[in-house]
Amino acid sequence: MKINIIGLGLIGGSMALDLKATGQHEIYGLDAAPAHIEQALELGLIDAEGSADSLKAADVVILAIPVNASLETIEGLLNAIGEHTLLMDVGSTKSRICDRLKEHPRRRNFLPTHPIAGTEFSGPSAAINGLFDGKTNIVCEVEKTSFKLQERAMEIFSQLGMRIRYMDPKAHDKHIAYVSHLSHISSFMLGKTVIEKEKNERDIFDMAGSGFESTVRLAKSSPEMWTPIFEHNRENVLETLEGYISNLQRFKELLQEEDYNAIFMEMENTNRIKDILKGITINAI
Amino acid sequence: MKINIIGLGLIGGSMALDLKATGQHEIYGLDAAPAHIEQALELGLIDAEGSADSLKAADVVILAIPVNASLETIEGLLNAIGEHTLLMDVGSTKSRICDRLKEHPRRRNFLPTHPIAGTEFSGPSAAINGLFDGKTNIVCEVEKTSFKLQERAMEIFSQLGMRIRYMDPKAHDKHIAYVSHLSHISSFMLGKTVIEKEKNERDIFDMAGSGFESTVRLAKSSPEMWTPIFEHNRENVLETLEGYISNLQRFKELLQEEDYNAIFMEMENTNRIKDILKGITINAI
Repeated sequence: MKINIIGLGLIGGSMALDLKATGQHEIYGLDAAPAHIEQALELGLIDAEGSADSLKAADVVILAIPVNASLETIEGLLNAIGEHTLLMDVGSTKSRICDRLKEHPRRRNFLPTHPIAGTEFSGPSAAINGLFDGKTNIVCEVEKTSFKLQERAMEIFSQLGMRIRYMDPKAHDKHIAYVSHLSHISSFMLGKTVIEKEKNERDIFDMAGSGFESTVRLAKSSPEMWTPIFEHNRENVLETLEGYISNLQRFKELLQEEDYNAIFMEMENTNRIKDILKGITINAI
Repeated sequence: MKINIIGLGLIGGSMALDLKATGQHEIYGLDAAPAHIEQALELGLIDAEGSADSLKAADVVILAIPVNASLETIEGLLNAIGEHTLLMDVGSTKSRICDRLKEHPRRRNFLPTHPIAGTEFSGPSAAINGLFDGKTNIVCEVEKTSFKLQERAMEIFSQLGMRIRYMDPKAHDKHIAYVSHLSHISSFMLGKTVIEKEKNERDIFDMAGSGFESTVRLAKSSPEMWTPIFEHNRENVLETLEGYISNLQRFKELLQEEDYNAIFMEMENTNRIKDILKGITINAI
């Protein structure tokens, strides 16, 4: 297939890498930053720079840029691709983009997806092999995409090793706020709290164990990518923040009141996150 | 050396494993749970079960039990060991235990330490090789321990591959509240918030990526171990919680006000946690 990837960062670059490795595709890359295209060529992520012509001739176009930029370009892009081209986005919010395109005459060329995969790094140099292998890809409004292009998308996902889960865009945005967007805020604010307090940064480094490193890892993430995600998913994110802050507040009160039995129970009840993460849910037995 | 390890969990068990591997020591194990001793013998963590006699004859006794239990047993233990035995604890809080022993006639036999190492697992089966290699060990009030026993401790730490950092117990408890204790609370409350909201646990599992897994990892930790840590370090932990909650509150307000420039800056300013974790501090250039 002729595949065009717009946005050669962590997600776009890693997709390019694995799809190119199959030997079955020609990979064209487009990016607002010319330096990214050069880098992607040097790293062997893409075969050639993309263009208006390559978009028109493409079998598949993958849009992998921040969600605000996706929203701005998606309509023009849908007009610019070929009549039989599949366009997919990979953004972390899905309601706005689905809304924006719902009356578009070429809506059947579009498939909204969200591959649940990533690291805290960004740019073409962050691209890695096998990033998507065994991961979940959430596909929204699949019925609105033409059947033939659905099949083409599934072929790509299968080559990336992803398992598919179908979901309504509103449900996606609501759940993802809890399991992804809130984690990022909790991590950023944890990093901020520690940096603010610990003027002597040497102390942090020396005393920080793997536990701190793990909880604060997401605070390395790109503000360019995350600011628009919070904007797009503002209401759901506000709801998660309210729940989180009130749970922290309650923990603080229990500590103020020295109610250590209740503190113990708070932790014990949450320990079952172990089983949830293992996929062994209590309800599923 | 004759080494007695009291508490055959993650920390005690992992120390036993590495010290036994040197071939230079006889390792005796003691634990309130007889099943742990059996397990430790089966796993080859220890050579034999310890006793009042082995404590008396020991060159080194390592106390690796929850901090409340340490506080309860430490005085009796210091009376029970031999005249030339070194007793070390490895607890995550240091002020209370140092306070408790400050007038003890055998204070010079005791060295308070905190190896910054661990995982979210517990019990003898959680013991792993090399857990302490390259990690920091915080040693408090070193001047109050007899010189000969300091040297013996350093030999043990060197065999475990640890680098030493000396610190006042109050400073230790204050800093560690930020870089360790707060991380555990943020993780437990994140897990709680998500579990509360997501009744259908299948959704969490399917949508949770490595980011969520990383921020929530510490919520698997043992409540038996962590409740007494929060009790011992209550005031410092309350201070960190206040800072953390107020930063989250501010982030929430910025999102309510749709001040995305400020949200961007919050994240960008915290991104330098990257450099801090790498040990490359801005101030140190």
